[in-house]
Amino acid sequence: MNTVELIRKKRDGETLSEKEIELLVNSYTKGKIPDYQFSALLMAIFFSGMNTNETAELTETMLHSGKTVDLSSIKGAKIDKHSTGGVGDKTSLILAPVVAAAGVYVPMISGRGLGHTGGTLDKLESIPGFRTNLNLREFKKVLKKCGAVLIGQTKEIAPADKLIYSLRDVTATVESIPLITGSIMSKKLAEGIDGLVLDVKTGNGAFMQKQSDSIKLASSLINTAKLFDKKVIAFITDMNQPLGNYIGNWLEVYESIEVLKGKRKGDLYNISLILSAAMIFLGKKAASIEEGKSVAKNLISSGKAYEKFLQLVKLQGGDIKYLEKPGLYPKAKVKKIIRVKRKGFLKTINTFQIGMAATELGAGRKTKDDKIDSTAGIIFNLKIGDEVKKNDVIAEIFSSSKSRIEDAEERINNALTFSDSKVKKPKLVKRIIM
Amino acid sequence: MNTVELIRKKRDGETLSEKEIELLVNSYTKGKIPDYQFSALLMAIFFSGMNTNETAELTETMLHSGKTVDLSSIKGAKIDKHSTGGVGDKTSLILAPVVAAAGVYVPMISGRGLGHTGGTLDKLESIPGFRTNLNLREFKKVLKKCGAVLIGQTKEIAPADKLIYSLRDVTATVESIPLITGSIMSKKLAEGIDGLVLDVKTGNGAFMQKQSDSIKLASSLINTAKLFDKKVIAFITDMNQPLGNYIGNWLEVYESIEVLKGKRKGDLYNISLILSAAMIFLGKKAASIEEGKSVAKNLISSGKAYEKFLQLVKLQGGDIKYLEKPGLYPKAKVKKIIRVKRKGFLKTINTFQIGMAATELGAGRKTKDDKIDSTAGIIFNLKIGDEVKKNDVIAEIFSSSKSRIEDAEERINNALTFSDSKVKKPKLVKRIIM
Repeated sequence: MNTVELIRKKRDGETLSEKEIELLVNSYTKGKIPDYQFSALLMAIFFSGMNTNETAELTETMLHSGKTVDLSSIKGAKIDKHSTGGVGDKTSLILAPVVAAAGVYVPMISGRGLGHTGGTLDKLESIPGFRTNLNLREFKKVLKKCGAVLIGQTKEIAPADKLIYSLRDVTATVESIPLITGSIMSKKLAEGIDGLVLDVKTGNGAFMQKQSDSIKLASSLINTAKLFDKKVIAFITDMNQPLGNYIGNWLEVYESIEVLKGKRKGDLYNISLILSAAMIFLGKKAASIEEGKSVAKNLISSGKAYEKFLQLVKLQGGDIKYLEKPGLYPKAKVKKIIRVKRKGFLKTINTFQIGMAATELGAGRKTKDDKIDSTAGIIFNLKIGDEVKKNDVIAEIFSSSKSRIEDAEERINNALTFSDSKVKKPKLVKRIIM
Repeated sequence: MNTVELIRKKRDGETLSEKEIELLVNSYTKGKIPDYQFSALLMAIFFSGMNTNETAELTETMLHSGKTVDLSSIKGAKIDKHSTGGVGDKTSLILAPVVAAAGVYVPMISGRGLGHTGGTLDKLESIPGFRTNLNLREFKKVLKKCGAVLIGQTKEIAPADKLIYSLRDVTATVESIPLITGSIMSKKLAEGIDGLVLDVKTGNGAFMQKQSDSIKLASSLINTAKLFDKKVIAFITDMNQPLGNYIGNWLEVYESIEVLKGKRKGDLYNISLILSAAMIFLGKKAASIEEGKSVAKNLISSGKAYEKFLQLVKLQGGDIKYLEKPGLYPKAKVKKIIRVKRKGFLKTINTFQIGMAATELGAGRKTKDDKIDSTAGIIFNLKIGDEVKKNDVIAEIFSSSKSRIEDAEERINNALTFSDSKVKKPKLVKRIIM
């Protein structure tokens, strides 16, 4: 069967066989199918979808396009977390040390920020000296030594995903549940994990804005994980406002330390606890998620989680003096305080625009080649439902240039609506799917 | 707005503006949008469709990607016909001389055969010497002199269509009503015509198998033609069996001459009459289609249509001795008669397979580079509903090789079903839409 017939088959809603999917993905990876045919196939998949078996086959072919990490020499459960991304989402920095301190291994391969969302690698690299480009040998060594490791995707892991993702990015075929599933799961399965906790964001700052779509994506990820015999728990969590209060790379490291030290509570602390708890439960260091939660709480209040983070940063080359004394960290050149113009209650936040404001300030990339300013970002003081009076602080914003500050200020002001009457606070965890 | 956003817009079912369509098509034609983005857009159009205005804008941009023929120096109505193609469909060869003989100009730009369908150009080129590659100056000269001209698409006419069609062909995006409409109408409008008769085939030998799809395509073509102020009539006609009895290039020229001489009646004669009648009516040489029909009948029975065909062939360089004495034409190397195996009534014909059998014999192309054998083809003796007895002739088949004959014979035998009880003959013209 030729490529055109296979594209037509998917276009017409038929099911592709395992062999056909393998042939398509492998031929594309080897350059035997041109981009223009593969992009037509991707758009056909966007519209016609893929069933569970097709999605699993896609994942498997992408997985086997590269190396997989063999972690069998490390005794004990290896559990990772994946978040679909949002604004202020820095939970990886918190839960990796918490879960490692509980005795569960966390081998984590993360991504960079693009558009309105931040990336774990960019945040970690704001710590002077921190290396995210460990090779697979170093990756294992750090994991074995401290129980957690945080690196970026290497060339060896799922190269088919890298190629296909680049093509999706420029052909408007990113937002497809089977394609997202294949992309996420091929990388996660390559890490050599036993189980996975999924944080699928929903709301106006998330990739999937509608809760029904987030549930569909979670189900697809769960089905695929189970077909590969991985333990999995998914949380559908709110992304209608930034998570925590700090947005921007060093700012988020700082907030993570505060949480790890037990100094900050609130939504970020709560979600970090529940995600850690699920990982500890999957790693069999707790009999239930509830029990996992109290394990995580104790590791934070005892200082063990924070100690684990220092160890991890040191092992990956980071200078921990900035963690121990954040006051030493360089300051942003320009700073401005944005204030409330009227009394009332904060009703809605266009979270996408808050993320774009942070990018505008220098905390993110508009194109792949943009450089990041570690000190840029937003300390966003308010949460939906907060009562405010005139001149209360909405946010402090940081950048290297005045014009960027002005652009971001306008964006933030336009992103908020206030109400005269009381506003209900949104629920943080919408649903747990196992 | 960038290309990805425009692809996403169409993907999500939104309407593209005139400027956006113009930008996309022109940028692609100039090589500023890569194939892989345009093919994703084509697949998005396949699924999301285009409304009447979008389709008209697509057509207009493709039309203005090249030259348009100015026929204003030729006084009188210029009317063309377009058929969506089928097996044994040789009406262009008949109606061009009939309509020209009636005093209506027929400037016709035709295509080649691919897959199971034949092409007017290939048929004409089976006449030794016949040139279909006239330039636009020669095109006008022949048209002015004899009232009809039959050529192939030149590089100057709608180059965007040529590029886009090549991409559609290899990305399974051919079967899209707005894309088909843009492709057909951009070329037809470039001819400088005042009106157009459409023969939209429906059935198992047609491009559109379902009548409802054929009606949708006809409506789209009519809407677009009207937006460009062209007079238009569409016929939905049956393609559940070959048209006429001859399939193959020279064989079809021969059958056309027989019809033009008034020696053959039947479905081919009838459909040629009605299409000619509609063209004569649109060209104001008859007050109604009915009246146009009797004009056409008279032109055939008087021999004027046949004379016009000889004049046309001569002007385009063809050797008319083969038309006057078909016995002089070279014979196919191998010939075989296929006979009926049981008595009964012919119930169904898989017309696609009959077309593929002709291609197999050498009458068509499997790939664009295949050479055509003018003498190859099928004389298919039966029509649906015919009563047969054992050993009646189903078909005579012609080729240059014995193995091809055997393959085609098997295909033809497998393409037919017979019934013990009487079978109703299908209606030739299903619907007229104006």
